[in-house]
Parts: sequence; structure tokens; C-alpha cells
Amino acid sequence: MAGNTFGTVFKVSTFGESHGNALGCVIDGCPSGLTIDSDDIQKALNRRKPGSTGQDGKLNPSVTARKEDDKVEILSGIFNNKTEGTPIALLIRNTSQHSSDYSNLETTFRPGHADFTYYQKYGFRDYRGGGRSSGRETAARVAAGAVAQKLLEKYNIKVVAYTLKACGIECTKKDISQIEQNLMRAPDNESAQKMQEKIEEIRKSGDSAGGVIECVIQNCPAGLGEPVFDKLDAELAKAMLSIGAVKGIEFGRGFEVSDLSGSQNNDSMHSQNGKPVFDSNNAGGILGGISNGNEIVFRLAVKPVPSIYKNQDTVKIDGDDFVSTQLEIKGRHDICLCPRIVPVVEAMANLVIADMLLRNMSAKA
Amino acid sequence: MAGNTFGTVFKVSTFGESHGNALGCVIDGCPSGLTIDSDDIQKALNRRKPGSTGQDGKLNPSVTARKEDDKVEILSGIFNNKTEGTPIALLIRNTSQHSSDYSNLETTFRPGHADFTYYQKYGFRDYRGGGRSSGRETAARVAAGAVAQKLLEKYNIKVVAYTLKACGIECTKKDISQIEQNLMRAPDNESAQKMQEKIEEIRKSGDSAGGVIECVIQNCPAGLGEPVFDKLDAELAKAMLSIGAVKGIEFGRGFEVSDLSGSQNNDSMHSQNGKPVFDSNNAGGILGGISNGNEIVFRLAVKPVPSIYKNQDTVKIDGDDFVSTQLEIKGRHDICLCPRIVPVVEAMANLVIADMLLRNMSAKA
Amino acid sequence: MAGNTFGTVFKVSTFGESHGNALGCVIDGCPSGLTIDSDDIQKALNRRKPGSTGQDGKLNPSVTARKEDDKVEILSGIFNNKTEGTPIALLIRNTSQHSSDYSNLETTFRPGHADFTYYQKYGFRDYRGGGRSSGRETAARVAAGAVAQKLLEKYNIKVVAYTLKACGIECTKKDISQIEQNLMRAPDNESAQKMQEKIEEIRKSGDSAGGVIECVIQNCPAGLGEPVFDKLDAELAKAMLSIGAVKGIEFGRGFEVSDLSGSQNNDSMHSQNGKPVFDSNNAGGILGGISNGNEIVFRLAVKPVPSIYKNQDTVKIDGDDFVSTQLEIKGRHDICLCPRIVPVVEAMANLVIADMLLRNMSAKA
Amino acid sequence: MAGNTFGTVFKVSTFGESHGNALGCVIDGCPSGLTIDSDDIQKALNRRKPGSTGQDGKLNPSVTARKEDDKVEILSGIFNNKTEGTPIALLIRNTSQHSSDYSNLETTFRPGHADFTYYQKYGFRDYRGGGRSSGRETAARVAAGAVAQKLLEKYNIKVVAYTLKACGIECTKKDISQIEQNLMRAPDNESAQKMQEKIEEIRKSGDSAGGVIECVIQNCPAGLGEPVFDKLDAELAKAMLSIGAVKGIEFGRGFEVSDLSGSQNNDSMHSQNGKPVFDSNNAGGILGGISNGNEIVFRLAVKPVPSIYKNQDTVKIDGDDFVSTQLEIKGRHDICLCPRIVPVVEAMANLVIADMLLRNMSAKA
Repeated sequence: MAGNTFGTVFKVSTFGESHGNALGCVIDGCPSGLTIDSDDIQKALNRRKPGSTGQDGKLNPSVTARKEDDKVEILSGIFNNKTEGTPIALLIRNTSQHSSDYSNLETTFRPGHADFTYYQKYGFRDYRGGGRSSGRETAARVAAGAVAQKLLEKYNIKVVAYTLKACGIECTKKDISQIEQNLMRAPDNESAQKMQEKIEEIRKSGDSAGGVIECVIQNCPAGLGEPVFDKLDAELAKAMLSIGAVKGIEFGRGFEVSDLSGSQNNDSMHSQNGKPVFDSNNAGGILGGISNGNEIVFRLAVKPVPSIYKNQDTVKIDGDDFVSTQLEIKGRHDICLCPRIVPVVEAMANLVIADMLLRNMSAKA
Repeated sequence: MAGNTFGTVFKVSTFGESHGNALGCVIDGCPSGLTIDSDDIQKALNRRKPGSTGQDGKLNPSVTARKEDDKVEILSGIFNNKTEGTPIALLIRNTSQHSSDYSNLETTFRPGHADFTYYQKYGFRDYRGGGRSSGRETAARVAAGAVAQKLLEKYNIKVVAYTLKACGIECTKKDISQIEQNLMRAPDNESAQKMQEKIEEIRKSGDSAGGVIECVIQNCPAGLGEPVFDKLDAELAKAMLSIGAVKGIEFGRGFEVSDLSGSQNNDSMHSQNGKPVFDSNNAGGILGGISNGNEIVFRLAVKPVPSIYKNQDTVKIDGDDFVSTQLEIKGRHDICLCPRIVPVVEAMANLVIADMLLRNMSAKA
Repeated sequence: MAGNTFGTVFKVSTFGESHGNALGCVIDGCPSGLTIDSDDIQKALNRRKPGSTGQDGKLNPSVTARKEDDKVEILSGIFNNKTEGTPIALLIRNTSQHSSDYSNLETTFRPGHADFTYYQKYGFRDYRGGGRSSGRETAARVAAGAVAQKLLEKYNIKVVAYTLKACGIECTKKDISQIEQNLMRAPDNESAQKMQEKIEEIRKSGDSAGGVIECVIQNCPAGLGEPVFDKLDAELAKAMLSIGAVKGIEFGRGFEVSDLSGSQNNDSMHSQNGKPVFDSNNAGGILGGISNGNEIVFRLAVKPVPSIYKNQDTVKIDGDDFVSTQLEIKGRHDICLCPRIVPVVEAMANLVIADMLLRNMSAKA
Repeated sequence: MAGNTFGTVFKVSTFGESHGNALGCVIDGCPSGLTIDSDDIQKALNRRKPGSTGQDGKLNPSVTARKEDDKVEILSGIFNNKTEGTPIALLIRNTSQHSSDYSNLETTFRPGHADFTYYQKYGFRDYRGGGRSSGRETAARVAAGAVAQKLLEKYNIKVVAYTLKACGIECTKKDISQIEQNLMRAPDNESAQKMQEKIEEIRKSGDSAGGVIECVIQNCPAGLGEPVFDKLDAELAKAMLSIGAVKGIEFGRGFEVSDLSGSQNNDSMHSQNGKPVFDSNNAGGILGGISNGNEIVFRLAVKPVPSIYKNQDTVKIDGDDFVSTQLEIKGRHDICLCPRIVPVVEAMANLVIADMLLRNMSAKA
């Protein structure tokens, strides 16, 4: 039983390989009556595009030239700019598949990539550009997330993610307003500058770098999350770990809690004008798997890009056997994925919250 | 839409409140023909029982006296000690509900607990002992996990979890054979001794402590996991974050990867007798969301027990308003949850792998 | 992937074999705050009990003696007679398993029963009294249906089913008030009397009889049903065909529509005080898979009881082979299932409507 | 929670409105390694096209001219003519939307159509050509069914459906080889001729006609179906009732069983070369919800086309009120849907059997 659908009430099914005809998604369960047009979705996709983060140290001059890339088409479910309650299908054509020769990857597995595991699972794979395991798959998530965001806006909920750390350099402040002012999508322009310099250095060495992304969900009402298995943090964890390159997640104080005492970690409460207020947010906005009304906060470990310009030991198929070989990956690749993953993290958070909002509607029916 | 069912092919639905009549589970989708009897399940439940971990510094002398606790009854699905392919229902009666007076918790919310969020979500709750949000709920998970384990045994897969760190003290070695030799379920008797001494100290201060649990899945075949959303790590993350007190998860090198370069992090491969072998396991056994045949390794952040013997600020309901109040929790509580959560982690890992094994059966059908 | 869960938001998972320890269900997704106690459920179960329909021509005198049968226990999810929003587990012990010798059925398959197909599917089965395939399984459905009914009552929706035809005798009127006045659960006491006489005759001949059940859902609001696959009629059809012995379903005019013209079959409309009113109900209350506000009406074909007191040709297992044999079924059996299936039909309709009510809550969210 | 996905392991999500940009589907869970190309799918779509059934009495001369209609494009999931195990997305553009003026249907509801119920459910609808409720939606089902058929071919299973009755005329023989030889898709050329003559007569009168479709599934192995809810007949019933215009289903002897005795209805068995053989097939190939190895047989009631050329009473929206009005539907419409629904019935049966085949793989794992 395959797993290309996310969500239970707000459900998104994605499709598409890196070098196939197209990728996209079908959203089933979006309420009727939301106002949305293709520009809303296109803007989200543009934020995800390679050129938009320009990790070569400056804003990529080819951004304009690539404008036609990742153009979304709404195939169904929206009429007169309003959602109909029927499935919303979104299409993104693969226009820029390079005719480069991938034949050497037909039998050889790139270290750190999913080539090997797809082969083991399916016995057959589209080896061009990683096929279904390519990061390109996330374009469909971002498109779907833009639709979910419309529902969240109706409830005044807002998701913000940013690069907290990259190539060993951590932000020293969190100024949300600076996130889109630098190419690292960091809430700290100065730290971002240092990250970019470090990235340039790493690029020259033919290597790559990891990082940490933080995500904050603002104005999430108390009550979202479905214990005991589909807890809000459990669903967010699944959503985030389903993003390639993410190797860990922690909520609130996260792994630090292992060294804290209960009296340090518990978030006490008091009343303000008859409303409950938390005195701290070590829990990251979730108690018992249900949102408590506080900001939801979590962080993600992002691994370094596995495609590096260094010779690596690996194996290839030779008949029924695997034999040792070496591989040097060619082409142009990102050095650090953080800024490009930020919109994907937001999209997945949008999808989780949209689903949980709708799921919660029958709790007290 | 509620969330008390886990898994998609090997599906477990749990039920039960801390102080209701009973708790238990229904397992739907367990293959027919597995040999199992109630002793197999009882043994797993016994490992989870409070007395078995004796965090007061020595093995709890009341273990024998409590033998009747958490007694499992098989209600259906097993005939002549073999699974029938029909739903397996397991029942655990709540026999030791103390008649203690919980009435002060009817309107007051314990800090760090789910009392507040359950009230916000459902507008009504069983306040006795935490109701559905009680850790007692995990007994049903452990019972179900024992059934899943039978399926895993057939495929020679084994799950082992242990306390890696508690109250700030980390194991200095990982000797699997020592896990059941100490009350902390640590793979290091010496460190366990130090942890227990520290716990005794914390107990006297009326406080509690957190920790880290590590879990290893041995002999998991390559090919399990269902991209792009139901990746193996995504499902494990959901499973683990659905356990109360768990605030984070990381796979393989985990959050360390944020400081690594690609050349440091990639697990290179070579061939040995025609079979592929990984030279390291930074990925924790999962690539692109699919098991790669290596050991699966992940760690969990466990928060300190929220029930402490100190006065805490909180709120209570007064008509339609919340008003500030203070609360001092009574009764006897664990200090550090790690040793008791270890069997729950194993149970959830058993469930995930069992489900993924069965899901994978149609991949190349 | 097994199929013992019904519904998607209001979800019921049932368990239990005819001669195992118990049967029951877990309901996940019932909204919190509904008032219900075990009497509500017990009453529904009592209506389904064998003694209550007395097909031997008069009310079975053993009804009182069997009073302990099918006693329901609420295990969880209800506190102070209110649903908590957590899983509601219901338990019914199997107390009256006769120690009769079923060993001749261990290898021989009863014609018209599921013995053969369960064996083919699972390779192993509990042959005592049909195991999981026994009609006894429906007790769990009736219990769950009683909970769903509480939700429907809140929305003023009412489900009524009755025997329309049995052993070739059809009701000549439909007087809802007479249904519980006769042992056939027919809306026509006179026809019921004739049916019972005919049944007595069939009983003496060692044979059995089929019939037709009709079900009406009153006050169902327009808008329920989820096209294009989970249409209201599609879900009702699945629900009803999942009841053993049901071999067909038709809505509104049903199979008669094959001989009608569009002008005869279309239900025209007019306005009454600004509200839409249908001039007829050939559609049976459903258009395009969505309820239209009219009464929902459908009929079910019920096959004759396969257990008859006549020698029948069948096969049994002999090593790896099947060999021809003959079988004469012993014990006491129903002659016509209609009156006993009526409460099961109502229960399943309750479950479908409850689920569809909750599913519809996110349509315009 | 919407319902545009069918199946649980072999899962199909469809999208598209009658006059939107496109319709199509995403198939998730198709095993890898099946050989398929777009011609296989195109052939199935061509069989469903309007022109192909020519109900005006002779093969529609515009068939060639419409060749570009319903052209399928494979967007993903198939590489080198082999399924990859990843989602298969299929796209069919809406090229022939007439610019006809549907504005009179914006507020007026066609009798017998879903216009009214969609409006009630979603509060907003695409009124052009029925929007999502249009029969055009079934093109996506047929495309998906063609992929499922590839899996069935691997297991030697074959689905055949045909018009058994139309406008009151029933076939007098069932010669499978004649089905594609006449425009009614009837297994009896002579009866088909009479049906067509009758249809021509009805057309002239401005009315429409219903019918009955029968479906046979050959070589289905014993063991498919998932009791107690997802029985094979229950899933087939859901699948078929999800097709617009289908108002009833019956298996094997169907509604006739209500008049049979058990001794007449039970299918006895004997052994032939050590294999079990049924002496009759009143059950229609299913016992206890599981296939028994016999041919699966069911019939469907098809209602007359609701679009007729006669003035009909209906209502329209006027502000917040509904007011009485009359409507005469324009344009060109089918008279009897049977021949066009036949391929849809086959497609849905293909989907059910494919899903059940894959679901059954874990039954004895």
C-alpha cells in the first residue's frame, strides 16, 4: 500500500517524477467557497524555485529567464476563483529536463541518495534525476500548501519557517521581517551573510553543508490534534520527516528537556481577563498532542546535500550481483538545502493544520 | 475525525481511560497462522508495569503483590493459539483504581499535563487520573506490539530500545545484554547506577527528570517505507511522537548532521560477495524514506514527568471564566519516565515495522 | 488489508467470533457530549436477540430465561453518562456457547455458508458456529448503531426498517405502528400472520425461506453524501451488502426504473413557502449521491437461511484434497432471517448517516 | 471529508468538471513492473466515447471527427512502458466544451439531476454541464480501470459487462461474442436491434429509457473480499452505486432469492479430481463476502436519462427563496445510458478486483 496521499480530511495526493512529463497534486476535501486563483499558488511556487535562493552568493541573474519554470495550471475544482468543494487538481509541467546523459546512473547508486532503496523496493526505477525521489517532488507540496494556506488565512493562522543554522553558523537573533531579505531565508541578515560566505567556501571545496530550520505557527487555536495516535506533534513530525534531507524534529525545548527538571520544564499558567495564559512555552504549544493556544514551535535537522563533487565509493549492478565502483557526480547542485526547504516546511505545516482544523469540526458535533 | 487507530494494513485501535472499566485494543489485519498465546502478551505487559522498574532505587518489592495488575485477556481472533486473520481484541481491566479524591482536578488543570487541552477540545473530560491522556493508555500499545512482534520474529527482525541518558547522565557504552540488568533499562550498568542515585536525589527534592531513549531495529530488510509521505522515518516519527512525554526524534546522526559536510555524512558503499555493504550508518538505516538494510537507529527526547511535589501556578474554571490558582499534586509518581517508556517505544516500532512489512507486499505484486 | 472497520469519521471496528470469549466494538470519532447509558444500547441488543422474534409461531417463552444473553458492558469513552470524544468500547460476552460437538464441521463445508471461503482465504478457521462469519457478529453492529442513533436523534433523523415480504408473502400495507406488534416485524399484522403460518409449514418440511426488507430514513437533511465515490447510496449499499444474507439493494423505484421513461421517473419540484418540495420520490431521496431532503428509501433481498434439515452434497478436506461428502446440519436454526436482520439494517443505516453527517461538516468550513 | 478516492491499496483519486480545463486521475498503489502504454488506456477511453455507441440507430458518423476527444496523456508513474510503483497520473483535456449558454442553469435545477443537491451541499457550484456531477467524470474511471485491467490480466482475471435489458426489451440469449457487434452492447444482436428501434421511437417522443446491465467476472480466485465490512459484494455494490444513474444491484439470483427456499438456493458442491466444484451459482460467486472461485455475477438497474425534451416543473433560486418554474432542457442527449455505462461498470469492477487482489496479499503473510 503506497503512501503518496497526505492528510485525512484535507487530503493531498501528489504525483510526478523529476524528468517525467509533469508533476502535480489532487486536493480532495478542501471546503467550498474559498477565494483563490492561480497567482496565489504561483507565488508560492516561485518562492521555492532554484533561482530564487541563489546560493552562489548573489541573487541568481537567471531568475527572470526561468520565469516560465514551475508554472502552475489549475485543472479542476476552482470556478470563478472560488473552490467548489470538488477535487482541486494542479499541474506543473517539467519543461527544463536537461537532455544530459543519466545512463551512468542507470546501474550505479549515488551515496546518500534514494537510488539504492528505490531499486530494492520496486526492482525498477526511473533513474533520471532521482525520479520520484527527487526534491523536485516538493513543488507539488508547495502548490497544495498554498491552497491550505487560504483556509488558514480564514482562521487567521499563520505559518513561518526560516533557516536557524547553516554550515555550522547559527542566527543570533530571530527577526521575522528579515527572512526574505537574504538568500538564506534566515531571520538575521548578518548571520545570513556569514552563512553565504561559508557556503561559497564549501562550494569551492566541492562539498556541501547541513543546517537547522525552525518553524513557528502563530494563532493556532487550542484544541487541534487527535490523540492518542494522530496527535498534533505526531502529525507534524510525520509531515516534516517526509521531506527529503530532514533527519530530526524537536518541539519547544526539544532535546534540551532531557536535561531539565519538571519544575524547569512545566509551563505554568495564570488568568488574564478570564482567559488562560501560559507563562512560558517549553512545550512548543502542544500538550498531550493537542494545541494549547500558544505558538507552536519546532526545529528540523537538515542533512548536507548528498551530491558532492568528490569521488565516492559505491556499488553498481552487474547482472544479479552488486560490484564496487566509484562515482563522481556531475552537474550543478545546491550546497545547503535550508533556504529551499523553508517553503516546503511551511507548505507541510499548512497542510497539517488545515487537516487538523477540519478534523476537529466533529469533536463536539 | 478522531485518531485512535494506528497503522494502515496492520491496524491497531486502542481504547480506555485511566480510571474507566478497562482498556485494550483491537488489531485488524494481522495475518492468519501466527502462533501466539496470552503469555506472550502478558510478558510484554509485565515489562511495562510500574513495579518492574522500581525507580526508588531498588526492585520494587510489590511487584509480586501486583501480579494481577494488567492481566490481559484475549477476546477474539486467536483460536488454538493461532491467529485467525480476524480481529484480535485484547482486554486489560482497570483493577487498581484508587478511590482517591480527584475532585480537585475536575476544574483545575495540572501544568505540563493534557488536562487543559482535552478540556479545550472536547468541552468535557474524565478528570480521574488523566482519563484518556494518562500514560496508562500505553498498556494497550504494548499488548498490540507483542502481537506485531510475533510477525517480526517470523521475518527475523528485532527491535531493541534503551535509556541512553537520564537526569543529565549519559551511558558511556552500549552493551545490549545489560539493559534488563538494571532498573533504568540502560545498556550500561555503571551509568545506570549513577542515574538511580541522581533520581533518588531528585525525588527527595520533589522534582523530576528527563532523558533520552535510543532504539535500534536489527535485520530490517531493505525496501520498507512508502514515499513520498509514508516514508519509514516519517511513520516512525509519528509513532514515537504519539507517545506522551516524547518531544523530539532524530535518525542516525540526527541533529549533528546540521554541522557535517556531505562528504562526512554520506554513507559510501562497497560490494562483499556480490552483496552491497554500507561503510557507515550516518543515515540511521533509511534513505529516501526506505530502509536500506542497515540497522535503523533513532533517539527520542523524553521530557521530565510533569507531576511534581511543588506548588505550581495554574488556572481553574470558574463558570465561564478561567481564574488563577495554585496546585500541589499529591500521590506517588515516577521521577523519570525513560525505563517505563522503553517497552512502549519498542511496541510502537514493532507496529510500524509490521505495518510496513505488510504494506510492502503489494509493491511488486 | 482486512476490513473490520466501518465508517471514516464515525468509525466502528468490530471483533469477535461466534464461540470465542466475547464480541464487541470500538467506536472512534463519536462527538463528545452526547447523553447515553448502557440501557440505550441494551434495548437495541434485546431487539436483535433470537428469542425476541420467536419464529416458531409464538413469542418464544425462553426470552426471559435468556435475559442474561448479549449483556453489553461499556468499557470506555462514556463518563457520567456522557460521551467523552474518546473511543467507546462495548463488550458482549459469549455466555451461551453450547458445548455441542462441531468437530464434524472442522473439515466439512456447509453449503451456502462462508466455511469454504474463509478456509480458502485464511487457510485456517474457527469452525465453531461459523466463527467470525456467524450472524452473531451483527450484535456488535447493533450496539454501535445504538450509539450512532443518539447522534441522529440530536439531528432529529430517524431510521425505520421492516419486513416487506417473506416466504413469498408481501405486505399489502405499510403501517409503521404495527412493526413491533408482530413477530415478523412487518408493517402489516395480517400479512405477518400469513407469513408466520407459511414459516411454520416450511419449518416442518425442514427447509427455510427468504424475503425482502425495506428501510426508510426520515428527516435526513439535504446535502449528505460525498461524490463521486462515497455517494450516500454507494455507502448505504456497501453497508447493507456487508450484512450476511443480503444479496441485493435497490433505491426508490429500484429495478423498476429499467422499464420507466425519463418523464415517468424524474421527480419534479415546486416551491412551497419559499422551500423546495419534490412532487414524487422515485429517486428514493438521493440525487447524484447526495440526499435531497426527501425520505430515503431502499429495499434489500434477503436469501433463505442456508442451514436446512436436509441432506446436502458438499466437500470436505482430506489431506491436500477435497473429497465429495454429504452433510445434514443439526441444531436449531431460524427459518427466515428478515425479522432478525431488521435491527441490523437499522443499525447500519444509523452508522452510515452518522458518518455522513460528520463528514459533511467540513464541506463548507 | 470528501470522497473522490476509490480503493485502499490500489487507490484511485479522480478530478475534473464537465467544462473545466481537464479531468483525470492519480493511481497510487499500482505495483511496479506492469507493462502498459497510453494506447492501452486510449482504447478503453475510445470505447466510452459518445460517438462509439451511436444511439441514433447507426454508428455515429462523427466518430472519426471526434478522434481527438478524450485523448489521454500519461503524466507520471510509467517509465519505458513499465509501471514504476509511483503514482500514475492520467490527464484528459476538455477540448469540446461548447460555448453554449448555461446561464439559465445557474439558478434553475434540472429535475432528476444532481444540480439541486450539489447546491445544497456546497452552497456554490459549477453549473456548466453538470460540473463534477456530469457523467463525463467517468472518463477518469475508465482510464484508471484500464490500468487495473493490466494487473488483472497478469492474474488471468477478466471482467465482462453488457446490456441485458433496455427500454423494456430483454435479451433472450447471452452470447458474449456479440456484445461489441451492436450499438447497445447487448450479448444478443437481435434483441439489440429491437432495443435500437424502440430507442428511436422514444427519441422522437422527446423522452428517454432505462435498462439493466449485467456484469460477469471470470477466473476470479477464491479468497478475495475482506469481511465483515469490506466484503467483496459490499465493495462491488459501493463501486457500482457510485456510478450515476445506477439505482440498484443484485448478486447471483438477486431479488429472486426472496421467493426461494434454502434447498433451492444453496449451491451444493462436489469434488472433481480433488478440487471443489459448485453445482450451481445462485450465490453469484460470493459466500460470506469472499469470492468462492465461481464466476461473479451481478446486475444493475439503470435509470432513464433525466435530460428529456419536455417541459418539467422545477424550482429556481430567487434571492434566499426557491420559486417554482418550468424548464425545457436543450442540446443533444443520450436516450438510454446502458451502452455507455457498460465500460464504466467494467472499469469499476476492474478497480475493485485489483484492490481486493492486493489487499488479500497480507492475509496469510
